[in-house]
Order: sequence, then structure tokens, then C-alpha cells
Amino acid sequence: MAQSNSSDLKAYIRSIPDFPKPGILFRDITPLLGNAEAFAEAIRQMADAVRDLGIQQIAAAEARGFLFASALALELGTGLVPIRKPGKLPYDTISHSYDLEYGTDTLQIHADAVQQGAKVLVVDDLLATGGTIDACCKLVEKAGGIVAACLFLVELVDLGGAGKIENYNKISLIRYEGA
Amino acid sequence: MAQSNSSDLKAYIRSIPDFPKPGILFRDITPLLGNAEAFAEAIRQMADAVRDLGIQQIAAAEARGFLFASALALELGTGLVPIRKPGKLPYDTISHSYDLEYGTDTLQIHADAVQQGAKVLVVDDLLATGGTIDACCKLVEKAGGIVAACLFLVELVDLGGAGKIENYNKISLIRYEGA
Repeated sequence: MAQSNSSDLKAYIRSIPDFPKPGILFRDITPLLGNAEAFAEAIRQMADAVRDLGIQQIAAAEARGFLFASALALELGTGLVPIRKPGKLPYDTISHSYDLEYGTDTLQIHADAVQQGAKVLVVDDLLATGGTIDACCKLVEKAGGIVAACLFLVELVDLGGAGKIENYNKISLIRYEGA
Repeated sequence: MAQSNSSDLKAYIRSIPDFPKPGILFRDITPLLGNAEAFAEAIRQMADAVRDLGIQQIAAAEARGFLFASALALELGTGLVPIRKPGKLPYDTISHSYDLEYGTDTLQIHADAVQQGAKVLVVDDLLATGGTIDACCKLVEKAGGIVAACLFLVELVDLGGAGKIENYNKISLIRYEGA
């Protein structure tokens, strides 16, 4: 993959119909993860997209966010701030709850994890409706950081997640439009 | 951290009493993750410990295993195979169930994720009783791989996890003995 672009990476995304329920076309990133060259190329492209932003920390929500945030932290030379489901982080936490299609969900960040005023990159594998990433941004801000950008490998454009985080700088490498 | 060893890394592990329940002294890796130099040094030391093993793929279980496996895959130039809780992986899966203190738990791997005969490194942040990592090894083998080593940042020696995976090559950077 010497001269690669995001269309090369798209070849490593597998589309699986009717998962997790009928009518949903699931974009499966695991073939990309499993291919050493494609994974390294994806991390390089994600890192290149934010290299000029002065990123000081990277935050990501479990579990799939960690799959890219960890390698990105190594590539960009930053620390990594895990955002987790309630009860998983052992120290003092800050919580943020957000609406789902049915009910609500909550995420937590360690209260001391973000340097005050630090430029934080918020990473996830995929932008769909945007609820999770918006919660991550709110947690970073509650903890004292500045959201420098939200970075995704994949964006499902028609699900409108970009609107949910319209006040943040959004970057996605691979976009799917239409059904 | 120009001349570092694992005792330097230990300074970034925070001990939290009575988490998740009274009497447990929890070893919190998040300060290490959050420090750019300590995180990079931990990844370098973990990678150095297995560089001679001819690792072809890295497997890790959600969620905390991903925090180190992703950066290690980038560092070692391998692909990454996620092992997840039931219902999370969208393609054909192989399952393995194992006993907990009360009840059982199950993990899954994509049936096509491991190259047949590949030397696979199984990674987790911490070795405690060893149930999760043993399940990961069994899944790698069921999927056709060879477990080249089990690699941990932290080992809680007194919990006896090493015995649970005594048939595998075990490597840990930071060891805690005693209460």
C-alpha cells in the first residue's frame, strides 16, 4: 500500500446485512484490523489528518474506540484517556448520560485524566448517530479539556451523526452514503 | 525515560484500595496510559519482550486488552484480532465459555480472523486469576492459530494466573507479590 488513499482502506471494510438486527447493514472493520498493512495505513492516515492540530491527549470510549486510539496515541506521541461504562474506572469519575433510541446510557471519565486546557482528540472507529462521541466530548470538556477534533475511521453519513457534533471539528476517513 | 526499566513504569501504576469491592487492592493502569512517555515506554518494553518470537498476529479481549494490543500491533507490524463478548462480533464466530467465581462467562472470536498456523501473541493489561487470558488462548487455537506467548503489562502473582496458563509462554513486565 505504498501510494494509498481511503478508497484502498474501504476494501478492508466488510458489509454484513441484518446485523445486529434485520434491515441494518453493518460495516465490519475487523478485516482492516486483521491486516497488518491496512491497519498501519489506517493509523497513518488518521494521524496525518490531525498532525497539525497540536493534539496533547487522545480520549476514546470502550470498547471499539480503544482499537484505534491506542495505536494513534503511540503514533502521535500522546497519552490515552479511556472513557468507560459506569463502575469500570476505579478512581474519582465524572459522568455524562445521553439518550438512546430507547432509554439512556451513561459514560464516565476519570476526574483527573485530562490536563486542564489540553487539546484533546476524541477517537472512535465509526460515526453513526453520534450519541457516544458527543458524550465523550462532553466528558472531555467537563474534565477540563478542549476538544480539538473528533476523528473516525468510518462515517455512516445518512445517520446524521455529524449534526449531533456540529460544534466540533469532525474528520472521517471512509464515508458511506445511502443504504 | 531514556534509560528505563519496568520499575520506572511501576511508578505510573496507581493502587486503589477496596475497588471494585472491600478488601481488593486495585492496580490502576490509567496514569500510565495517560502519560505519553510512560505509555510509549511500556509499549516498547512489551514489544521488545516478544520481538524474537516471530509474532504474526495479536489477539486481545475487550475492553482493556485493546488498550495495549492496538499500539503493540502497530509497533510490531502485525494485524489485530479482537476477542469480544457474545453478540458483538458481526460475522461467523467461535465461542469459548469459562468458569468465574460465580457462574460462567463466554468470549467469541471471528471464525476467519486467525491465519491457519499463525504465531499469535495474546495480550492483556493485567494477569490476575487467568480465566480471561486462558479463554483467549483457547479461542486462538480453536480458530487455527498457535499461541506464541501471553503478554501482560502487570501480573498479580499471588492470584495464581500463571498456573492457569502454565502450558503457554507467559511474559509480564510489572509484578506485584503479596497483598
